[in-house]
Amino acid sequence: MNIYDKRNISMMMDLYELTMANGYYLQEKQDRKVVFDVFYRKNPDEAGFAIFAGLEQIVEYIEGMHFEKEDIAYLRSLHQFDEGFLDYLSDFRFTGDVYAFEEGTIMYPGEPILTVVAPLVQAQMVETEILAQVNHQSLIATKAQRIVRSAKGRAVSDFGARRAHNNDAAIYGARAAYIGGVKGSATVSAGQYFHIPLGGTMAHSWIMYYQDELTAFRKFAETYPDNCILLVDTYDVLHQGVKNAITVFEEMRAAGITSKNYGIRIDSGDLAYLTREARKMLDAAGFSDAKIVISNSLDEYTIRSILDQGGQVDSFGVGERLITSRSEPVFGAVYKLAAVEEGQEMQPRIKVSEAVEKITNPGLKDVYRIYNEEGHAIADLITKAGEDVVMEGGYRFVDPLEPWKVRRFEHARAKKLQKQVIRHGQRVGSLPKTSDIQAYVRHQLEHEIWLEEQRFENPHRHYVDMSPAYYEMKMDMLKEHSK
Amino acid sequence: MNIYDKRNISMMMDLYELTMANGYYLQEKQDRKVVFDVFYRKNPDEAGFAIFAGLEQIVEYIEGMHFEKEDIAYLRSLHQFDEGFLDYLSDFRFTGDVYAFEEGTIMYPGEPILTVVAPLVQAQMVETEILAQVNHQSLIATKAQRIVRSAKGRAVSDFGARRAHNNDAAIYGARAAYIGGVKGSATVSAGQYFHIPLGGTMAHSWIMYYQDELTAFRKFAETYPDNCILLVDTYDVLHQGVKNAITVFEEMRAAGITSKNYGIRIDSGDLAYLTREARKMLDAAGFSDAKIVISNSLDEYTIRSILDQGGQVDSFGVGERLITSRSEPVFGAVYKLAAVEEGQEMQPRIKVSEAVEKITNPGLKDVYRIYNEEGHAIADLITKAGEDVVMEGGYRFVDPLEPWKVRRFEHARAKKLQKQVIRHGQRVGSLPKTSDIQAYVRHQLEHEIWLEEQRFENPHRHYVDMSPAYYEMKMDMLKEHSK
Repeated sequence: MNIYDKRNISMMMDLYELTMANGYYLQEKQDRKVVFDVFYRKNPDEAGFAIFAGLEQIVEYIEGMHFEKEDIAYLRSLHQFDEGFLDYLSDFRFTGDVYAFEEGTIMYPGEPILTVVAPLVQAQMVETEILAQVNHQSLIATKAQRIVRSAKGRAVSDFGARRAHNNDAAIYGARAAYIGGVKGSATVSAGQYFHIPLGGTMAHSWIMYYQDELTAFRKFAETYPDNCILLVDTYDVLHQGVKNAITVFEEMRAAGITSKNYGIRIDSGDLAYLTREARKMLDAAGFSDAKIVISNSLDEYTIRSILDQGGQVDSFGVGERLITSRSEPVFGAVYKLAAVEEGQEMQPRIKVSEAVEKITNPGLKDVYRIYNEEGHAIADLITKAGEDVVMEGGYRFVDPLEPWKVRRFEHARAKKLQKQVIRHGQRVGSLPKTSDIQAYVRHQLEHEIWLEEQRFENPHRHYVDMSPAYYEMKMDMLKEHSK
Repeated sequence: MNIYDKRNISMMMDLYELTMANGYYLQEKQDRKVVFDVFYRKNPDEAGFAIFAGLEQIVEYIEGMHFEKEDIAYLRSLHQFDEGFLDYLSDFRFTGDVYAFEEGTIMYPGEPILTVVAPLVQAQMVETEILAQVNHQSLIATKAQRIVRSAKGRAVSDFGARRAHNNDAAIYGARAAYIGGVKGSATVSAGQYFHIPLGGTMAHSWIMYYQDELTAFRKFAETYPDNCILLVDTYDVLHQGVKNAITVFEEMRAAGITSKNYGIRIDSGDLAYLTREARKMLDAAGFSDAKIVISNSLDEYTIRSILDQGGQVDSFGVGERLITSRSEPVFGAVYKLAAVEEGQEMQPRIKVSEAVEKITNPGLKDVYRIYNEEGHAIADLITKAGEDVVMEGGYRFVDPLEPWKVRRFEHARAKKLQKQVIRHGQRVGSLPKTSDIQAYVRHQLEHEIWLEEQRFENPHRHYVDMSPAYYEMKMDMLKEHSK
C-alpha cells in the first residue's frame, strides 16, 4: 500500500476476531445477541482518573464498517475462511447498538465506559478498532490534561507530530490533546480535520540558513511582524540570541510596528535560569509584553519544576512526552463479554482468571455518577440494567474492595453515564464539536471532580460502587465458578 | 474528517514548515539548494545500536507530495500565507534528491542516516513526515529485535494493534516489528498491505460465550483442527484449562485427527510456573508436540526471566510493550540544516547550542562502514563529501569523543552507507520487499555486528569516527563561532 492510498479501516483488526467470527458463523446462530463491555483497570501515571476520548472515530468506524472486493480476496488467500462467511462479509453492515459515556467524560477503573449489544459475529469483529481508539485517544487526552494542569493557566501547545507513532498518532493525538486542554497544535492536518487552532514558531534551520542570527531574525520579523516568536538558542541564548531579538524588537518599535504576538523561544539549556534572565533583559529593554515560549522534552513534572524555580514562561511547546505519553505509553482498556442472550434474557457471563484484577463485571448493567448537593461527584455506581436507583432514604452503596463497609449518601443525585450512540448500526443524534468536548472536560474538572482526585501524588480513590443486588449477583457467580 | 476518508499525507506537517517555507518563498531565491541531514543522538534502552526503518514510506511520501484544492483553501483560511506561495503549492512537486541508508541498516548515533539535497522551500517542508516515519518505525523495529533476541530462536508474534497509538501505529508498527524479526503479526491490515504472515489464536470471549470451557474448546477444535491453540486461563489454568485442552486433544487423537499446529495459550498468572507444569501435563498425556504460547505484557526482560526460570515456551505473543516500545517510546531523530549552496559550493552550517550533544555535524558528507578481514563492522566513518578514503597504509580515524587518540585499522574495507533513493523527485530503482529487509537485518546481526554491541547491559560503543579533514573542518567552525 502506498502511503497516500485510501485505507479500509474495517480491516484494522486482529486476525482472531475474524477466525472467531468465522467459527461462530459456522457453529452458532449468528443473530444471537451478546453484550461486550469496554473498561480499563488502572489509571496511567498512578493518577486519580482518566478522560474518555475517541468516541467520534468509533461511531464513524461502526457506521462505515464494510469489506471491499480486494479485502475479501485477501481473506480468501489466507485459506482459513468459509466461503459462506466471506459472502456474509461482502454484504456486512453492523446492525447492533452501542452505548457509551459522552466523549470527554472523566472515567475510573472498572466501570463500563462503552457497551456493544449486537449479534455475536458483529460484536466480536469491532473489538480491535474500538480498543485502539479508546486506548490511544484516552491516553493522550489524559496525559495532556496533566500537562495543562501543571502549567497553571499558561498556554500549552502540542508540538509532537515528528515523534508521534506515525501519522494517525500525530493527527488523532492532536485531537485528543486538544480534548485534554491544550490551546492548539502545530500539526496542520489536525487543524484541517478537527478545527484545532494551529500555532508554531520557527526552526533552527531558519537561523542557520542565514549567515548570521541577526539577519535571520530581521527577515522573520519582516515576514511575520504579528507572529514574531524568535528562536534564540541556536548559538548562545543570553550572550547572543536574546540580545539580537531585542535589537530586532527595538527596530520594530523605531519603525512604529506594534506586534500582536512577539517574543522568544528557548529550546535547550537550563530553562528555569535562562527564562528568568531573558525576562529581565526583555523587561529592561521595555518589552515586558514580549512572550517567552519554551520547549525541549517538557512534561508535567519538568513544567512544575521550572515554575517552582521561578521560571518566567508564557507558553509551553510540548512534544514527544505528550504525543507518546512517555511516562506511561500504554492505556489498557479491554473488551470483555458480559452477557449472552438466552431466550428473552441476557444471561451474564464472567471471566474468573488467576489474577483478581482480571475478574470481569458480569451482565448488562447501568452506570451512574452520584453527585452531592454542591454538585461534586462523590461516587460512581454500577447496577443491574433497569434497576431502580432511588437516592432518597439512604441508598446503600457497596464498595467491592471493602464490601463490609456500609456507605450511604444523603441528598445525593444520580446521573446515568452511558447514552446510546448507535442504534441498529446508525448514529443517534449528532456528535459534539471537539471544542465542546474540551469545554466539557474543563467543566467537570472545575465543578464536579474533587481536587483531591486531581493531584499527582496519592490522589484520592474515586469510589466505583455497586448496588447491593448487582454485588450479590456477581458474588453468586464467583461462588458458582469456584465450586 | 471521517475515519474512512482518504488523507493527504502531504499536509501532515508542523505549521512552521509552511510558515518558514512561505517566508523563504518571499524573502529568498527559492531554488537555492540546501542540505538537511537526519540523525539521532541516543540509542533507546541504553542499547548499542538501532535499526533504520520507514524508508519505503518516506520514498512514497516524497514522490507523491502534492496539495489539493481543499488543502490550499484550508491554508488560505489561516491568513498567514502569501497568494503567490499558495499558487506555488498548488503546482508543488518535490524536485530534489534524497540519499539514505538501506532500510534495515544497523545505525548509530551521530551519523547522517538520510540526507535531503533540494531547493530550500522543498527541503524544509518534508521535515515532519520524514522524521515521523524514521522515528516511529526505527523505534519499533529496534524494540522488536530486542524482544526477538531475548526469545533465543523461539517465535515472537506482534499482538499489539489494540494498544497501538491508533491505526497507523498498529499497521506500520507491525511492518517495523517484522523488519526487526518477529515471525508475524495479528494485525490483518498489516498482512494485507505488507505481506506479513498473520497469526492468532482465540479470545476469552470464545470461552465465555459457551456454557463451559470444554464445549468451547471442542467447538474450536472442530472448526480449526489444524490451528488449534486453546486459551486455557479463563477460569483456572492447571485445574481446569489444561485438563480440558488435553481432553480435546485426546478426542482428536481418538478420531484420528493429526493437527499441524495445536497446543495452549496462557495469558495470565505466573507464566514460568504455569508453563513448566502445563508442559509436564501435556507430555504425560502424550502431547509432547503440543505448543505452549504465552502472552500478557511481555517484553525482552520478562521473556528472558521466564526462560531463565525454565519456562517451557514455544512461542510468544507480544502486545503493548512492543507496539508502544513501552520502555522508551520516543525515538529522537532530528532533521538539521548542514549546508547551503553558495555559487558552485555547498557551504557548511553548524548549530552550536548550549548543550554539547546538540551540536550538529556540518557540511555535505559521506558515511562509511568499516569492516575488518573477517567482515566485522569495526567502526563507521564520516568524511567530507567526495574525500578519498584509502584504507591501505594505515588510515587515521579520529574519534570526536577522544580526538587525542590515534586509531588505525589494518586490512580494513570501507563501504559507503548512503545510496541515492530519490533523484529529481523520483525513486531510483525499486524498493526491497519487507521480508528481504528482515533478512538483511538478520544477516548484519549474525555476520557483521559484534555480539558485544548486541548485549542489553553496557554494550560496547560503536565508533562513529571522522576523517582528519572532516574533524578539522568542524573544529574550525566551532572555533569561529566561539569568537
